[in-house]
Amino acid sequence: MPWTPIEADSDWPLYVSVYKRIRHAIRGGLVEGKLPSKNQAAKLLSVSKVTIEQAYRQLVSEGYIHSRPRSGFYVNPGFMQRTPQNAARDEADFPPQFKSEYCFDLSTYAVATECFPFAVWSRLSRQLLSEESDKLLNSTPGKGILALRQQICGYLQNYRGVRAHPEQILLGAGTEWAASIFNLLFTRGQRFAIENPSYSKVWRILSAHGRDILRVPMCQDGIDLAALQKAKPDLVHISPAHHFPLGLVMPIQQRLALLKLAEQMDFYMIEDDYDCEFRFEGRPIPALKSLDGDERVIYLNTFTKSLAPSLRISYMLLPRTLLEKYERELSFYACTVPGFQQYVLARFMGEGHFSTHLKRMRRVYKDKHDALLEALRQSSLGKHLEISGEKAGLHFLLRLKGELNEAEMLSRAAAQGIKLSGLSEFYSPKINVPQATVLMGFAKLKPEELPELISRLQNAWSMP
Amino acid sequence: MPWTPIEADSDWPLYVSVYKRIRHAIRGGLVEGKLPSKNQAAKLLSVSKVTIEQAYRQLVSEGYIHSRPRSGFYVNPGFMQRTPQNAARDEADFPPQFKSEYCFDLSTYAVATECFPFAVWSRLSRQLLSEESDKLLNSTPGKGILALRQQICGYLQNYRGVRAHPEQILLGAGTEWAASIFNLLFTRGQRFAIENPSYSKVWRILSAHGRDILRVPMCQDGIDLAALQKAKPDLVHISPAHHFPLGLVMPIQQRLALLKLAEQMDFYMIEDDYDCEFRFEGRPIPALKSLDGDERVIYLNTFTKSLAPSLRISYMLLPRTLLEKYERELSFYACTVPGFQQYVLARFMGEGHFSTHLKRMRRVYKDKHDALLEALRQSSLGKHLEISGEKAGLHFLLRLKGELNEAEMLSRAAAQGIKLSGLSEFYSPKINVPQATVLMGFAKLKPEELPELISRLQNAWSMP
Repeated sequence: MPWTPIEADSDWPLYVSVYKRIRHAIRGGLVEGKLPSKNQAAKLLSVSKVTIEQAYRQLVSEGYIHSRPRSGFYVNPGFMQRTPQNAARDEADFPPQFKSEYCFDLSTYAVATECFPFAVWSRLSRQLLSEESDKLLNSTPGKGILALRQQICGYLQNYRGVRAHPEQILLGAGTEWAASIFNLLFTRGQRFAIENPSYSKVWRILSAHGRDILRVPMCQDGIDLAALQKAKPDLVHISPAHHFPLGLVMPIQQRLALLKLAEQMDFYMIEDDYDCEFRFEGRPIPALKSLDGDERVIYLNTFTKSLAPSLRISYMLLPRTLLEKYERELSFYACTVPGFQQYVLARFMGEGHFSTHLKRMRRVYKDKHDALLEALRQSSLGKHLEISGEKAGLHFLLRLKGELNEAEMLSRAAAQGIKLSGLSEFYSPKINVPQATVLMGFAKLKPEELPELISRLQNAWSMP
Repeated sequence: MPWTPIEADSDWPLYVSVYKRIRHAIRGGLVEGKLPSKNQAAKLLSVSKVTIEQAYRQLVSEGYIHSRPRSGFYVNPGFMQRTPQNAARDEADFPPQFKSEYCFDLSTYAVATECFPFAVWSRLSRQLLSEESDKLLNSTPGKGILALRQQICGYLQNYRGVRAHPEQILLGAGTEWAASIFNLLFTRGQRFAIENPSYSKVWRILSAHGRDILRVPMCQDGIDLAALQKAKPDLVHISPAHHFPLGLVMPIQQRLALLKLAEQMDFYMIEDDYDCEFRFEGRPIPALKSLDGDERVIYLNTFTKSLAPSLRISYMLLPRTLLEKYERELSFYACTVPGFQQYVLARFMGEGHFSTHLKRMRRVYKDKHDALLEALRQSSLGKHLEISGEKAGLHFLLRLKGELNEAEMLSRAAAQGIKLSGLSEFYSPKINVPQATVLMGFAKLKPEELPELISRLQNAWSMP
C-alpha cells in the first residue's frame, strides 16, 4: 500500500506527501523493519530519488526511522511493532496524551525566549567546538568548572552585593539537583520548613525524599517570625527578593530580624533568588546573603529565568560549615551540568554578554509588565481588579472583586484559551488563601497580543 | 559625613552613589532619625533633587527608611552593623589545591576522547542553533524529548535485543540522577542490595541518602544466588554484561536463574549496562532485559563510555509497574538534561552517526586492548602476570604473582607517574579480596606511549 505510485498534491511539496504516506504506514504498523532503498522507493513511488531522500530525512529527524551506515533505513520501534496480542495492550498502556492548546500562556514558568541571544550563543558554541578541546569531553570538577564559578562570583558581587569565593559555589541541574543536595546536607532528624504559600517543586521533591515539611505562614513583610520561632526548623526555604507566589519584597528590618533569629535559634536558610534580576521600581535589592555575617544563608539561583529554561543550570553558594560537610561527605558527586554548557556560559558571562542581556531583558520585561497593567486598568475589568506583588519578578497577582471565585476565574479563562494559575494552588494547607486571586505571568506576552487578551479576559470575567 | 558633596562614579548612575553612601551610613549607625529634606540633601550633596528622590525611593523600597506624609523621611529603627567578610580570611580558608600530575592515566573512567566525532557533532549543533527554534530554549518533557527516547528504543532493539516503548524511557543527568530516582521509587523500608565488589558511586549515593545497602558476594558466574536469596532484597544492582570491577560476563544459565529467583522472591534488578558496547570476543551478548518477560529488570545505561563523560546523559527503562508509580508520584520531576544536548544527540543518532561511531570505537578499543595485553605479555613482567576480565569493557584486571601487595603495586606505579586503581577499593567489606590485583583501564592509552608505559611498569614492579 505505501509503496505504490504517488500523485502530487498541490498543497505541499511532493516529498511531504511521500513522508506523510510512509509515516501513516509506520504508525499503522503496515511498515516495519528495513525500508526499501532510496532507489527502490523512488521507482515504486514514481518520484525522484531526491524526493525520497528528503522524505526519509524528515522521518529520521522525527524519530520514525533511523539509518544504518552501508545498510539502509529501518523503522524505529514503538509504533505498533509488538506482536499482535501485545499491540493492543501497548496502545492501552500508553495512550497518546492530548494537551489542550492555549492561545495565551500566562503561566509563571514562561520566559521571553524570543529575546534569547542566539547569535552570540551560537558564535561562542562554534568557537568552543572548533577548538575541539579535550576539556569539552572529559568530566568537569564535581562543583563545575572554575571559570564559570568565578564568573558567578563576579555576578553575585556586582548584582547581588554578595561576596563569595569560587570554592563556595556548586553548579548543578535545576531544582531537582538542589533539593537532593539539601536533603543530603541535613540529617534525617533535622527539620525543614517552607513558607506557605510557596513554590511547590522544592517541597514536592523533599516530600518525595520522605521529609516532613513544616509550613510557616506569611505575614505582610515575609515569613511570619513568631510562627517560625515556634516551628523550630533546622533549615527554612525563603525567597526574599520576590516571594513566590505572593510577590512580596522582604524589607530590611525583617531581613535583619530573620538573620538574628537564625543566629539565636541556630537554623540555616535557603535564599531562593530565582528571579531577582527583574525589578521594576528602583534598583535590584541586594540579596539577604549580602547581610549574612554569621553564615546562615545558603544562596540559590538559576539561569532559567535570566537565560532559558532548557539550560538546566542552577548554582548554590554554601556557608563554610556546610561547605566543609559537602567536601567531606559529598565531594564524590559528579557535576550534573554537561561540560559544554558550562564552557559556553562561562565565556558568555566572561565577555560581558550576560550583563548586556540582563540590561535588555529588564527593559523588555518592564515594557511587558507596564503594558499589561495599563491595559488591565483601562479595561472594563479595571475597577474590579486589585493588583499586588507587581514591583518585581515576572508575574503579579490579580484579584477580582465580585461574584467569581478562583476556580471560576480559571475555568472561564481557560474556556477563552488563557492559561493561568490560581493562587490557592501554592497553599498547603489551604489556610487564609486570598479570595479570587490568580497569578499573571507576562514574560511570554507580545504587545500585539494585548488587545485580544484583554478582550478575552473581559469575556471571561465580565459581570452582568 | 554622608551629607557632603558627592562625585559621580563612572560605574553607575549618580543616584546609586548617593543611595550607597546613605545606606552605608545607616548601617554604620551614622544616620538616625529624620533625614534632610530632598531639597536640603540636594544642596548638601551638590546633586539634583531628582537624584535624591531616586536614592530615597530605593532606600524606602529596601526598608532602610520610610516616608511620613507632610513630614519627611525617617531612618527605620533596629540596624546593627554586621562585619563584612574579610578578604584575608577568605584566602586562608581556601588554600589552592595541588593535584599530582600523572603521565599515564590508566583509571577506568577515562575514554578515548580523541576519537569523539567533533566534526559531525559541531555540524549538527550549528544546524540546530541556526534553526533558532523556541523548542531549544523551553523546558523539555520531564522524561526527555520524544525523538531521543525513540532513538534510544531503536538502539536498544538493534544492539541490546531489548524492545521498549518510548514512554518507558527516562533521561537524566548521570548516576547521581539515576540513584536518586531509585531511592524515590522504593519506600524506605525496602531493602537494596549490591554486588561486592561493585562500582562505588551508586552505593555511595544511596548510602548518602540514608539507605542501608546489603552487600552480596560474587561467585565466578556473577552474583552469588544463594547469598542473594538469604539477603532478601527488594532491589539489587548488577552489571551482567561486564561486571565492574571484576569484568565477568554473566552466562545465560545464571541469567535465567536470576530472573527466576527475582520472580519467586519478588525483587527488582537494576541492570547497569554501562560499557556493554565494547566486547572483544564474539558478538555482543543481549541484555538481561531482553529475557525479562516478568518485567523485573530496570535497564540503566549512559553515553559516558560510548560518547563522552562530559555529556551527562543517562537513561533508564522502567518496567510497567514502576513506570506507573513514577507517573503517579514523580512525573513533576523536570528532565535534568539540557534541551540542546537532547536535540543534538537525537539528530546524531537519527542520522546514523552513533552506529558509525560505535563501530569505529569497537575497533579502536580492540586495538588498544590487544596492544596493551600483548606488550604486557612480552615484557619481563609477562610470566608473573595473571590477566582476567579481558573479554569486554574498557579495563581488565592484572594480578602480579610475587612479593608485592596491592598497595605496594599502586605506590610504586604512582612513583613512576602511572595512575591505577586497586581492586580492593571496590570491596566493602573487604572479604575475599584477590591479592595484588589492579585495574588497567586502556581507553586513553595511545599506541606510541606503550613502550614507555611498559618500561615504567617494569621499573615499578620488577622483582630482584
